[in-house]
Amino acid sequence: MKRFDEIFEKVKKRKKTVVLVGAEDRESLIALDEAVKLGFVDAILVGNGKIVKDTLKDLKIKDDFEIIDSDPLSSSEVGVKIVSSGKADILMKGLVKTSALLKAVLNPEWGLRTGSLLSHLTVVEAKDYDRFIGITDGGMIIRPTLDQKVQIVKNAVAFFKKLEIDTPKVACIAAIEVVNPDMPETLDAAELSVMGKRKQIDECIIEGPLGFDNAIDERAARVKGITNDVAGHADILLVPDIHSGNFIGKTMDYCAHYTIGGIVLGAKAPIVVVSRADEARSKLASISLSALA
Amino acid sequence: MKRFDEIFEKVKKRKKTVVLVGAEDRESLIALDEAVKLGFVDAILVGNGKIVKDTLKDLKIKDDFEIIDSDPLSSSEVGVKIVSSGKADILMKGLVKTSALLKAVLNPEWGLRTGSLLSHLTVVEAKDYDRFIGITDGGMIIRPTLDQKVQIVKNAVAFFKKLEIDTPKVACIAAIEVVNPDMPETLDAAELSVMGKRKQIDECIIEGPLGFDNAIDERAARVKGITNDVAGHADILLVPDIHSGNFIGKTMDYCAHYTIGGIVLGAKAPIVVVSRADEARSKLASISLSALA
Repeated sequence: MKRFDEIFEKVKKRKKTVVLVGAEDRESLIALDEAVKLGFVDAILVGNGKIVKDTLKDLKIKDDFEIIDSDPLSSSEVGVKIVSSGKADILMKGLVKTSALLKAVLNPEWGLRTGSLLSHLTVVEAKDYDRFIGITDGGMIIRPTLDQKVQIVKNAVAFFKKLEIDTPKVACIAAIEVVNPDMPETLDAAELSVMGKRKQIDECIIEGPLGFDNAIDERAARVKGITNDVAGHADILLVPDIHSGNFIGKTMDYCAHYTIGGIVLGAKAPIVVVSRADEARSKLASISLSALA
Repeated sequence: MKRFDEIFEKVKKRKKTVVLVGAEDRESLIALDEAVKLGFVDAILVGNGKIVKDTLKDLKIKDDFEIIDSDPLSSSEVGVKIVSSGKADILMKGLVKTSALLKAVLNPEWGLRTGSLLSHLTVVEAKDYDRFIGITDGGMIIRPTLDQKVQIVKNAVAFFKKLEIDTPKVACIAAIEVVNPDMPETLDAAELSVMGKRKQIDECIIEGPLGFDNAIDERAARVKGITNDVAGHADILLVPDIHSGNFIGKTMDYCAHYTIGGIVLGAKAPIVVVSRADEARSKLASISLSALA
Protein backbone atom coordinates (compact mmCIF):
# COMPACT_ATOMS: atom_id res chain seq x y z
CA MET A 1 0.00 0.00 0.00
CA LYS A 2 1.16 3.51 -0.77
CA ARG A 3 -1.57 5.81 0.46
CA PHE A 4 -3.70 6.27 3.55
CA ASP A 5 -6.83 6.08 1.38
CA GLU A 6 -5.92 2.43 0.72
CA ILE A 7 -5.57 1.79 4.46
CA PHE A 8 -8.89 3.53 5.10
CA GLU A 9 -10.61 1.21 2.59
CA LYS A 10 -8.95 -1.87 4.01
CA VAL A 11 -9.79 -1.28 7.67
CA LYS A 12 -13.48 -0.76 6.85
CA LYS A 13 -13.65 -4.39 5.74
CA ARG A 14 -12.54 -5.88 9.05
CA LYS A 15 -13.68 -3.46 11.65
CA LYS A 16 -11.83 -3.45 14.98
CA THR A 17 -12.84 -1.98 18.33
CA VAL A 18 -10.98 0.87 20.01
CA VAL A 19 -11.14 1.46 23.74
CA LEU A 20 -10.53 5.11 24.56
CA VAL A 21 -8.97 5.43 28.02
CA GLY A 22 -9.75 8.78 29.65
CA ALA A 23 -12.70 9.48 27.37
CA GLU A 24 -13.24 12.92 28.90
CA ASP A 25 -10.71 14.19 26.32
CA ARG A 26 -12.46 16.33 23.69
CA GLU A 27 -9.81 16.02 20.97
CA SER A 28 -9.65 12.24 21.17
CA LEU A 29 -13.44 12.00 21.20
CA ILE A 30 -13.73 14.14 18.07
CA ALA A 31 -11.12 12.05 16.25
CA LEU A 32 -12.57 8.73 17.36
CA ASP A 33 -16.13 9.77 16.48
CA GLU A 34 -14.94 10.71 13.00
CA ALA A 35 -13.24 7.32 12.60
CA VAL A 36 -16.40 5.55 13.79
CA LYS A 37 -18.57 7.57 11.39
CA LEU A 38 -16.26 6.64 8.51
CA GLY A 39 -16.61 2.99 9.50
CA PHE A 40 -12.94 2.43 10.39
CA VAL A 41 -13.58 1.19 13.94
CA ASP A 42 -16.12 0.69 16.72
CA ALA A 43 -15.49 2.37 20.07
CA ILE A 44 -15.81 1.79 23.81
CA LEU A 45 -15.30 4.79 26.09
CA VAL A 46 -13.72 4.50 29.55
CA GLY A 47 -13.89 7.44 31.96
CA ASN A 48 -16.10 9.38 34.32
CA GLY A 49 -19.51 8.49 32.89
CA LYS A 50 -21.18 11.79 33.65
CA ILE A 51 -18.36 13.93 32.27
CA VAL A 52 -18.04 11.75 29.17
CA LYS A 53 -21.78 12.03 28.49
CA ASP A 54 -21.75 15.79 29.02
CA THR A 55 -18.74 16.15 26.70
CA LEU A 56 -20.40 14.06 23.99
CA LYS A 57 -23.49 16.25 24.28
CA ASP A 58 -21.43 19.42 24.18
CA LEU A 59 -19.61 18.18 21.06
CA LYS A 60 -22.96 17.15 19.53
CA ILE A 61 -21.67 13.60 19.12
CA LYS A 62 -24.44 10.98 18.88
CA ASP A 63 -24.60 9.36 22.30
CA ASP A 64 -24.70 5.67 21.45
CA PHE A 65 -21.22 4.55 22.46
CA GLU A 66 -20.74 1.97 25.17
CA ILE A 67 -19.43 3.95 28.16
CA ILE A 68 -17.68 2.21 31.03
CA ASP A 69 -17.70 4.37 34.14
CA SER A 70 -14.35 4.60 35.87
CA ASP A 71 -12.44 6.94 38.15
CA PRO A 72 -9.24 8.54 36.75
CA LEU A 73 -6.93 6.33 38.83
CA SER A 74 -8.27 3.03 37.53
CA SER A 75 -9.26 3.89 33.97
CA SER A 76 -5.94 2.67 32.52
CA GLU A 77 -6.38 -0.70 34.22
CA VAL A 78 -10.01 -0.91 33.12
CA GLY A 79 -9.11 -0.06 29.53
CA VAL A 80 -6.19 -2.48 29.30
CA LYS A 81 -8.31 -5.30 30.77
CA ILE A 82 -10.98 -4.70 28.13
CA VAL A 83 -8.30 -5.28 25.50
CA SER A 84 -6.62 -8.24 27.22
CA SER A 85 -10.02 -9.90 27.68
CA GLY A 86 -10.52 -9.70 23.90
CA LYS A 87 -13.49 -7.32 24.00
CA ALA A 88 -11.50 -4.62 22.18
CA ASP A 89 -8.49 -4.68 19.84
CA ILE A 90 -6.90 -1.26 20.15
CA LEU A 91 -5.94 0.96 23.07
CA MET A 92 -6.29 4.71 22.61
CA LYS A 93 -4.92 7.33 24.99
CA GLY A 94 -7.33 10.04 26.06
CA LEU A 95 -7.19 12.19 29.19
CA VAL A 96 -4.80 9.95 31.09
CA LYS A 97 -1.08 10.22 31.65
CA THR A 98 0.99 8.28 29.13
CA SER A 99 3.07 6.87 31.99
CA ALA A 100 -0.03 5.53 33.76
CA LEU A 101 -1.37 3.97 30.57
CA LEU A 102 1.97 2.31 29.76
CA LYS A 103 2.33 1.03 33.32
CA ALA A 104 -1.01 -0.73 32.90
CA VAL A 105 0.01 -2.04 29.47
CA LEU A 106 3.16 -3.55 31.00
CA ASN A 107 1.40 -5.16 33.99
CA PRO A 108 2.69 -8.74 34.11
CA GLU A 109 -0.63 -10.29 35.16
CA TRP A 110 -3.33 -8.65 33.09
CA GLY A 111 -1.30 -6.31 30.85
CA LEU A 112 -0.45 -6.52 27.18
CA ARG A 113 3.28 -7.19 27.23
CA THR A 114 4.82 -9.55 24.68
CA GLY A 115 8.45 -9.48 25.82
CA SER A 116 9.23 -6.99 23.06
CA LEU A 117 10.13 -3.35 23.62
CA LEU A 118 7.36 -0.80 23.16
CA SER A 119 8.38 1.61 20.39
CA HIS A 120 6.87 4.40 18.36
CA LEU A 121 6.53 4.35 14.58
CA THR A 122 5.60 7.37 12.49
CA VAL A 123 4.16 6.44 9.11
CA VAL A 124 4.29 9.11 6.45
CA GLU A 125 2.56 9.20 3.08
CA ALA A 126 5.58 10.64 1.27
CA LYS A 127 3.91 11.93 -1.86
CA ASP A 128 7.21 12.94 -3.51
CA TYR A 129 8.41 9.37 -3.23
CA ASP A 130 5.15 7.54 -3.97
CA ARG A 131 5.42 5.28 -0.93
CA PHE A 132 4.99 5.12 2.81
CA ILE A 133 8.10 6.02 4.78
CA GLY A 134 8.37 4.92 8.39
CA ILE A 135 10.38 6.87 10.98
CA THR A 136 11.30 5.18 14.23
CA ASP A 137 11.66 5.95 17.06
CA GLY A 138 10.69 9.61 17.21
CA GLY A 139 8.15 9.27 19.98
CA MET A 140 8.99 6.85 22.74
CA ILE A 141 12.56 5.65 23.37
CA ILE A 142 14.70 8.71 24.10
CA ARG A 143 18.10 7.40 23.05
CA PRO A 144 18.02 3.71 22.20
CA THR A 145 20.93 1.33 22.78
CA LEU A 146 22.05 -1.00 20.00
CA ASP A 147 19.91 -3.78 21.41
CA GLN A 148 16.90 -1.50 21.64
CA LYS A 149 17.47 -0.39 18.05
CA VAL A 150 17.24 -4.05 16.98
CA GLN A 151 13.85 -4.33 18.69
CA ILE A 152 12.67 -1.00 17.29
CA VAL A 153 13.54 -2.23 13.79
CA LYS A 154 11.76 -5.54 14.35
CA ASN A 155 8.59 -3.78 15.52
CA ALA A 156 8.60 -1.49 12.49
CA VAL A 157 9.35 -4.31 10.03
CA ALA A 158 6.47 -6.39 11.40
CA PHE A 159 4.17 -3.42 10.91
CA PHE A 160 5.36 -2.71 7.37
CA LYS A 161 4.43 -6.26 6.40
CA LYS A 162 0.85 -5.26 7.21
CA LEU A 163 1.28 -2.44 4.70
CA GLU A 164 2.04 -5.29 2.26
CA ILE A 165 5.74 -4.43 2.01
CA ASP A 166 7.14 -7.96 2.26
CA THR A 167 10.82 -7.21 2.76
CA PRO A 168 11.07 -3.63 4.00
CA LYS A 169 14.27 -1.69 3.31
CA VAL A 170 15.59 -0.19 6.55
CA ALA A 171 18.12 2.68 6.55
CA CYS A 172 19.99 3.53 9.75
CA ILE A 173 20.45 7.23 9.12
CA ALA A 174 22.94 9.79 10.43
CA ALA A 175 24.33 13.16 9.34
CA ILE A 176 26.90 11.35 7.19
CA GLU A 177 27.01 8.04 5.32
CA VAL A 178 30.47 6.94 6.46
CA VAL A 179 31.63 5.40 9.73
CA ASN A 180 33.08 8.06 12.03
CA PRO A 181 34.35 7.02 15.48
CA ASP A 182 33.35 10.46 16.80
CA MET A 183 29.73 9.73 15.92
CA PRO A 184 28.47 6.68 17.84
CA GLU A 185 25.30 6.81 15.71
CA THR A 186 27.36 5.79 12.67
CA LEU A 187 28.96 2.92 14.59
CA ASP A 188 25.56 1.56 15.64
CA ALA A 189 24.40 1.91 12.04
CA ALA A 190 27.36 -0.09 10.72
CA GLU A 191 26.83 -2.76 13.37
CA LEU A 192 23.12 -3.07 12.56
CA SER A 193 23.99 -3.33 8.88
CA VAL A 194 26.29 -6.31 9.55
CA MET A 195 23.71 -7.86 11.89
CA GLY A 196 21.35 -7.79 8.93
CA LYS A 197 23.88 -9.55 6.69
CA ARG A 198 24.40 -12.25 9.38
CA LYS A 199 20.62 -12.73 9.65
CA GLN A 200 20.57 -11.54 13.27
CA ILE A 201 17.96 -9.11 11.98
CA ASP A 202 15.79 -10.76 9.38
CA GLU A 203 12.71 -10.22 7.24
CA CYS A 204 14.14 -6.91 6.05
CA ILE A 205 17.19 -5.46 4.31
CA ILE A 206 19.05 -3.13 6.64
CA GLU A 207 21.88 -0.75 5.70
CA GLY A 208 23.74 2.05 7.37
CA PRO A 209 25.06 4.55 7.95
CA LEU A 210 23.16 6.40 5.26
CA GLY A 211 22.28 10.08 5.05
CA PHE A 212 18.60 11.08 5.05
CA ASP A 213 18.92 12.13 1.41
CA ASN A 214 20.69 9.09 0.05
CA ALA A 215 18.42 6.80 2.08
CA ILE A 216 15.18 7.97 0.49
CA ASP A 217 16.18 9.68 -2.76
CA GLU A 218 17.48 7.67 -5.72
CA ARG A 219 19.24 10.64 -7.33
CA ALA A 220 21.03 11.62 -4.12
CA ALA A 221 22.28 8.04 -3.68
CA ARG A 222 23.51 7.95 -7.28
CA VAL A 223 25.31 11.31 -7.06
CA LYS A 224 27.11 10.14 -3.93
CA GLY A 225 27.89 6.80 -5.59
CA ILE A 226 26.20 4.75 -2.89
CA THR A 227 24.94 1.49 -4.31
CA ASN A 228 23.19 -1.03 -2.11
CA ASP A 229 19.69 -2.44 -1.93
CA VAL A 230 18.45 0.20 0.51
CA ALA A 231 20.08 3.46 -0.67
CA GLY A 232 17.54 5.61 -2.48
CA HIS A 233 14.67 3.27 -1.68
CA ALA A 234 14.38 3.09 2.11
CA ASP A 235 10.95 2.24 3.54
CA ILE A 236 11.92 2.66 7.18
CA LEU A 237 14.32 5.23 8.64
CA LEU A 238 15.88 4.20 11.95
CA VAL A 239 16.90 7.47 13.62
CA PRO A 240 19.53 8.00 16.34
CA ASP A 241 17.19 9.44 18.97
CA ILE A 242 13.74 10.78 19.78
CA HIS A 243 14.64 14.38 18.87
CA SER A 244 15.97 13.67 15.39
CA GLY A 245 13.03 11.39 14.60
CA ASN A 246 10.51 13.86 15.95
CA PHE A 247 12.03 16.68 13.85
CA ILE A 248 11.83 14.66 10.61
CA GLY A 249 8.17 13.84 11.24
CA LYS A 250 7.30 17.41 12.16
CA THR A 251 9.16 18.85 9.15
CA MET A 252 7.36 16.40 6.84
CA ASP A 253 4.08 17.48 8.45
CA TYR A 254 4.48 21.27 8.70
CA CYS A 255 6.75 22.00 5.73
CA ALA A 256 6.16 19.16 3.23
CA HIS A 257 2.47 18.74 4.13
CA TYR A 258 2.66 14.97 4.04
CA THR A 259 -0.10 13.06 5.85
CA ILE A 260 1.34 11.48 8.96
CA GLY A 261 0.13 8.86 11.40
CA GLY A 262 1.72 7.44 14.53
CA ILE A 263 1.38 4.22 16.50
CA VAL A 264 2.96 2.50 19.49
CA LEU A 265 4.06 -1.05 18.66
CA GLY A 266 5.39 -3.97 20.67
CA ALA A 267 2.40 -4.72 22.91
CA LYS A 268 -0.25 -7.37 22.26
CA ALA A 269 -2.47 -4.61 20.92
CA PRO A 270 -1.59 -1.41 19.08
CA ILE A 271 -1.71 1.81 21.07
CA VAL A 272 -2.86 5.10 19.55
CA VAL A 273 -1.89 8.50 20.86
CA VAL A 274 -3.15 11.56 19.01
CA SER A 275 -1.80 14.99 19.81
CA ARG A 276 -3.92 18.10 20.10
CA ALA A 277 -1.83 19.88 17.50
CA ASP A 278 -2.39 17.09 14.92
CA GLU A 279 -4.65 17.90 12.02
CA ALA A 280 -7.88 15.93 11.70
CA ARG A 281 -6.51 13.79 8.86
CA SER A 282 -3.43 12.90 10.91
CA LYS A 283 -5.57 11.71 13.78
CA LEU A 284 -7.63 9.56 11.41
CA ALA A 285 -4.42 8.25 9.87
CA SER A 286 -3.17 7.16 13.31
CA ILE A 287 -6.43 5.40 14.13
CA SER A 288 -6.41 3.65 10.76
CA LEU A 289 -2.85 2.42 11.32
CA SER A 290 -3.89 0.89 14.63
CA ALA A 291 -6.84 -0.82 12.98
CA LEU A 292 -4.44 -2.34 10.46
CA ALA A 293 -1.88 -3.44 13.06
CA MET B 1 15.01 39.93 3.76
CA LYS B 2 12.76 36.95 3.15
CA ARG B 3 13.91 35.42 -0.11
CA PHE B 4 17.17 34.40 -1.77
CA ASP B 5 16.30 36.60 -4.75
CA GLU B 6 16.67 39.61 -2.44
CA ILE B 7 20.09 38.36 -1.32
CA PHE B 8 21.10 37.78 -4.94
CA GLU B 9 20.22 41.41 -5.80
CA LYS B 10 22.01 42.76 -2.76
CA VAL B 11 25.31 40.94 -3.26
CA LYS B 12 25.56 42.16 -6.86
CA LYS B 13 25.86 45.71 -5.56
CA ARG B 14 28.98 45.13 -3.48
CA LYS B 15 30.81 42.35 -5.17
CA LYS B 16 33.15 40.23 -3.05
CA THR B 17 35.94 37.90 -4.13
CA VAL B 18 35.87 34.15 -3.49
CA VAL B 19 39.03 32.09 -3.35
CA LEU B 20 38.33 28.47 -4.31
CA VAL B 21 40.81 26.17 -2.59
CA GLY B 22 41.37 22.94 -4.51
CA ALA B 23 40.01 24.36 -7.76
CA GLU B 24 40.37 21.02 -9.54
CA ASP B 25 36.87 20.23 -8.23
CA ARG B 26 34.35 20.21 -11.10
CA GLU B 27 31.21 20.73 -9.00
CA SER B 28 32.64 23.75 -7.17
CA LEU B 29 33.91 25.24 -10.43
CA ILE B 30 30.51 24.93 -12.06
CA ALA B 31 28.80 26.57 -9.09
CA LEU B 32 31.36 29.33 -8.75
CA ASP B 33 31.33 30.07 -12.49
CA GLU B 34 27.55 30.41 -12.34
CA ALA B 35 27.83 32.83 -9.40
CA VAL B 36 30.47 34.86 -11.25
CA LYS B 37 28.32 34.98 -14.40
CA LEU B 38 25.37 36.22 -12.36
CA GLY B 39 27.60 38.94 -10.93
CA PHE B 40 27.44 37.76 -7.30
CA VAL B 41 31.22 37.45 -6.82
CA ASP B 42 34.63 37.51 -8.44
CA ALA B 43 36.85 34.44 -8.13
CA ILE B 44 40.45 33.38 -7.62
CA LEU B 45 41.30 29.72 -8.17
CA VAL B 46 43.96 27.90 -6.15
CA GLY B 47 45.16 24.45 -7.25
CA ASN B 48 47.29 22.57 -9.74
CA GLY B 49 47.39 25.11 -12.57
CA LYS B 50 47.45 22.61 -15.41
CA ILE B 51 44.63 20.47 -14.04
CA VAL B 52 42.51 23.53 -13.24
CA LYS B 53 42.97 24.89 -16.77
CA ASP B 54 42.14 21.51 -18.33
CA THR B 55 39.05 21.20 -16.15
CA LEU B 56 37.86 24.69 -17.10
CA LYS B 57 38.33 23.81 -20.75
CA ASP B 58 36.52 20.51 -20.34
CA LEU B 59 33.62 22.30 -18.62
CA LYS B 60 33.63 24.98 -21.36
CA ILE B 61 34.10 27.66 -18.72
CA LYS B 62 35.65 30.88 -20.04
CA ASP B 63 39.30 30.77 -18.99
CA ASP B 64 39.84 34.26 -17.56
CA PHE B 65 40.03 33.55 -13.85
CA GLU B 66 43.16 34.32 -11.88
CA ILE B 67 44.70 30.92 -11.17
CA ILE B 68 47.30 30.50 -8.44
CA ASP B 69 49.33 27.36 -8.98
CA SER B 70 49.74 25.26 -5.85
CA ASP B 71 50.37 21.66 -4.86
CA PRO B 72 47.59 19.86 -2.95
CA LEU B 73 49.47 19.97 0.39
CA SER B 74 49.84 23.75 0.46
CA SER B 75 46.70 24.94 -1.32
CA SER B 76 44.79 25.44 1.97
CA GLU B 77 47.58 27.66 3.31
CA VAL B 78 47.82 29.56 0.03
CA GLY B 79 44.05 30.12 -0.06
CA VAL B 80 43.77 31.23 3.56
CA LYS B 81 46.69 33.65 3.14
CA ILE B 82 44.98 35.23 0.13
CA VAL B 83 42.00 35.95 2.38
CA SER B 84 44.01 37.09 5.42
CA SER B 85 46.04 39.44 3.19
CA GLY B 86 42.77 41.08 2.14
CA LYS B 87 42.98 40.09 -1.54
CA ALA B 88 39.83 37.94 -1.22
CA ASP B 89 36.83 37.98 1.13
CA ILE B 90 35.44 34.46 1.09
CA LEU B 91 36.98 31.01 1.37
CA MET B 92 35.40 28.20 -0.65
CA LYS B 93 36.19 24.52 -0.26
CA GLY B 94 37.01 22.63 -3.44
CA LEU B 95 39.00 19.42 -3.83
CA VAL B 96 40.69 19.63 -0.44
CA LYS B 97 39.95 17.86 2.82
CA THR B 98 37.73 19.87 5.14
CA SER B 99 40.08 19.09 8.02
CA ALA B 100 43.09 20.49 6.10
CA LEU B 101 41.18 23.64 5.16
CA LEU B 102 39.98 24.23 8.73
CA LYS B 103 43.47 23.61 10.12
CA ALA B 104 44.74 26.40 7.89
CA VAL B 105 41.80 28.64 8.89
CA LEU B 106 42.70 28.14 12.55
CA ASN B 107 46.45 28.79 12.13
CA PRO B 108 47.39 31.27 14.88
CA GLU B 109 49.87 33.23 12.78
CA TRP B 110 48.32 33.71 9.35
CA GLY B 111 44.90 32.05 9.79
CA LEU B 112 41.44 33.53 10.12
CA ARG B 113 40.55 32.79 13.74
CA THR B 114 38.62 35.33 15.77
CA GLY B 115 38.46 33.52 19.10
CA SER B 116 34.93 32.39 18.31
CA LEU B 117 33.91 28.80 17.59
CA LEU B 118 33.49 27.84 13.94
CA SER B 119 29.91 26.70 13.39
CA HIS B 120 27.63 25.80 10.53
CA LEU B 121 24.40 27.61 9.72
CA THR B 122 21.80 26.35 7.27
CA VAL B 123 19.57 29.12 5.92
CA VAL B 124 16.26 28.03 4.48
CA GLU B 125 13.80 30.04 2.42
CA ALA B 126 10.76 28.61 4.20
CA LYS B 127 8.06 29.49 1.73
CA ASP B 128 5.22 28.26 3.96
CA TYR B 129 6.32 30.69 6.65
CA ASP B 130 7.31 33.65 4.46
CA ARG B 131 10.69 34.09 6.12
CA PHE B 132 14.18 32.71 6.35
CA ILE B 133 14.65 30.03 8.99
CA GLY B 134 18.14 29.24 10.23
CA ILE B 135 19.14 25.80 11.51
CA THR B 136 22.32 25.45 13.52
CA ASP B 137 24.45 23.45 13.91
CA GLY B 138 23.63 20.68 11.45
CA GLY B 139 27.00 20.61 9.75
CA MET B 140 30.00 21.12 11.96
CA ILE B 141 29.84 20.61 15.73
CA ILE B 142 28.80 17.02 16.37
CA ARG B 143 27.23 17.39 19.82
CA PRO B 144 27.79 20.87 21.27
CA THR B 145 28.18 21.57 24.97
CA LEU B 146 26.17 24.35 26.61
CA ASP B 147 29.03 26.77 26.13
CA GLN B 148 29.42 25.82 22.48
CA LYS B 149 25.68 26.28 22.00
CA VAL B 150 26.04 29.87 23.25
CA GLN B 151 28.71 30.52 20.62
CA ILE B 152 26.71 28.77 17.91
CA VAL B 153 23.75 31.04 18.72
CA LYS B 154 25.93 34.15 18.67
CA ASN B 155 27.36 33.26 15.26
CA ALA B 156 23.88 32.69 13.84
CA VAL B 157 22.45 35.85 15.40
CA ALA B 158 25.26 37.97 13.95
CA PHE B 159 24.54 36.49 10.53
CA PHE B 160 20.78 37.06 10.77
CA LYS B 161 21.42 40.75 11.37
CA LYS B 162 22.92 40.79 7.88
CA LEU B 163 19.60 39.41 6.67
CA GLU B 164 18.17 42.59 8.24
CA ILE B 165 16.51 40.73 11.11
CA ASP B 166 17.50 43.07 13.93
CA THR B 167 16.54 40.97 16.94
CA PRO B 168 16.33 37.37 15.75
CA LYS B 169 14.07 34.96 17.63
CA VAL B 170 16.00 31.84 18.60
CA ALA B 171 14.22 28.60 19.59
CA CYS B 172 16.18 25.83 21.32
CA ILE B 173 14.22 22.88 20.02
CA ALA B 174 13.73 19.33 21.27
CA ALA B 175 11.18 16.54 20.86
CA ILE B 176 9.08 18.09 23.63
CA GLU B 177 8.53 21.62 24.91
CA VAL B 178 8.84 20.86 28.61
CA VAL B 179 11.90 20.31 30.80
CA ASN B 180 12.56 16.59 31.23
CA PRO B 181 15.58 15.50 33.31
CA ASP B 182 15.88 12.39 31.10
CA MET B 183 16.50 14.62 28.08
CA PRO B 184 19.64 16.74 28.59
CA GLU B 185 18.69 18.66 25.43
CA THR B 186 15.71 20.13 27.27
CA LEU B 187 17.89 21.12 30.23
CA ASP B 188 20.34 22.95 27.96
CA ALA B 189 17.39 24.65 26.27
CA ALA B 190 15.98 25.88 29.58
CA GLU B 191 19.41 27.11 30.66
CA LEU B 192 19.95 29.00 27.40
CA SER B 193 16.52 30.54 27.76
CA VAL B 194 17.41 31.93 31.20
CA MET B 195 20.83 33.06 29.94
CA GLY B 196 18.91 35.12 27.40
CA LYS B 197 16.75 36.68 30.10
CA ARG B 198 19.87 37.57 32.13
CA LYS B 199 21.47 39.16 29.04
CA GLN B 200 24.27 36.59 28.98
CA ILE B 201 23.12 36.03 25.41
CA ASP B 202 22.05 39.29 23.85
CA GLU B 203 20.95 40.85 20.58
CA CYS B 204 18.32 38.13 20.22
CA ILE B 205 15.32 36.65 22.03
CA ILE B 206 16.01 33.04 22.99
CA GLU B 207 13.47 30.52 24.30
CA GLY B 208 13.40 26.81 24.96
CA PRO B 209 12.67 24.05 25.10
CA LEU B 210 10.22 24.35 22.23
CA GLY B 211 9.06 21.69 19.80
CA PHE B 212 9.88 22.11 16.10
CA ASP B 213 6.20 22.74 15.40
CA ASN B 214 5.48 25.26 18.12
CA ALA B 215 8.76 27.05 17.40
CA ILE B 216 7.96 27.88 13.79
CA ASP B 217 4.19 27.57 13.46
CA GLU B 218 1.85 30.07 15.09
CA ARG B 219 -1.14 27.73 15.10
CA ALA B 220 0.82 24.90 16.71
CA ALA B 221 2.03 27.24 19.45
CA ARG B 222 -1.50 28.49 20.07
CA VAL B 223 -3.01 24.99 20.23
CA LYS B 224 -0.40 23.95 22.79
CA GLY B 225 -1.00 27.18 24.72
CA ILE B 226 2.64 28.27 24.50
CA THR B 227 2.89 32.03 24.62
CA ASN B 228 6.25 33.76 24.50
CA ASP B 229 7.99 36.05 22.04
CA VAL B 230 9.62 33.21 20.12
CA ALA B 231 6.96 30.47 19.96
CA GLY B 232 5.39 30.34 16.51
CA HIS B 233 7.81 32.92 15.10
CA ALA B 234 11.32 31.48 15.46
CA ASP B 235 13.95 32.73 13.01
CA ILE B 236 16.73 30.44 14.19
CA LEU B 237 16.40 26.84 15.39
CA LEU B 238 19.18 25.71 17.70
CA VAL B 239 19.24 21.91 17.40
CA PRO B 240 20.64 19.38 19.88
CA ASP B 241 23.20 17.81 17.55
CA ILE B 242 24.54 17.53 14.01
CA HIS B 243 22.23 14.64 13.10
CA SER B 244 18.98 16.31 14.08
CA GLY B 245 19.97 19.57 12.37
CA ASN B 246 21.09 17.79 9.24
CA PHE B 247 17.80 15.85 9.05
CA ILE B 248 15.68 19.02 9.29
CA GLY B 249 17.67 20.68 6.51
CA LYS B 250 17.53 17.60 4.29
CA THR B 251 13.80 17.11 4.88
CA MET B 252 13.14 20.76 4.02
CA ASP B 253 15.22 20.30 0.88
CA TYR B 254 14.03 16.91 -0.40
CA CYS B 255 10.44 16.83 0.88
CA ALA B 256 9.37 20.48 1.24
CA HIS B 257 11.46 21.70 -1.73
CA TYR B 258 12.63 24.80 0.10
CA THR B 259 15.75 26.52 -1.24
CA ILE B 260 18.61 25.97 1.18
CA GLY B 261 22.04 27.48 1.61
CA GLY B 262 24.81 26.72 4.07
CA ILE B 263 27.75 28.65 5.48
CA VAL B 264 30.50 28.22 8.08
CA LEU B 265 30.63 31.15 10.50
CA GLY B 266 33.00 32.26 13.25
CA ALA B 267 36.17 32.92 11.24
CA LYS B 268 37.31 36.32 9.98
CA ALA B 269 35.88 35.38 6.59
CA PRO B 270 32.88 33.21 5.71
CA ILE B 271 33.59 29.70 4.45
CA VAL B 272 31.49 28.04 1.76
CA VAL B 273 31.20 24.31 1.32
CA VAL B 274 28.90 23.02 -1.41
CA SER B 275 28.01 19.36 -1.61
CA ARG B 276 27.87 17.38 -4.83
CA ALA B 277 24.30 16.34 -4.14
CA ASP B 278 23.14 19.97 -3.75
CA GLU B 279 21.00 21.35 -6.53
CA ALA B 280 22.40 24.23 -8.58
CA ARG B 281 20.18 26.78 -6.83
CA SER B 282 21.34 25.57 -3.41
CA LYS B 283 24.97 26.02 -4.37
CA LEU B 284 24.25 29.55 -5.58
CA ALA B 285 22.33 30.22 -2.38
CA SER B 286 25.35 29.18 -0.30
CA ILE B 287 27.70 31.40 -2.29
CA SER B 288 25.29 34.34 -2.00
CA LEU B 289 25.11 33.87 1.79
CA SER B 290 28.89 34.05 2.01
CA ALA B 291 28.93 37.21 -0.09
CA LEU B 292 26.46 38.75 2.35
CA ALA B 293 28.35 37.67 5.48
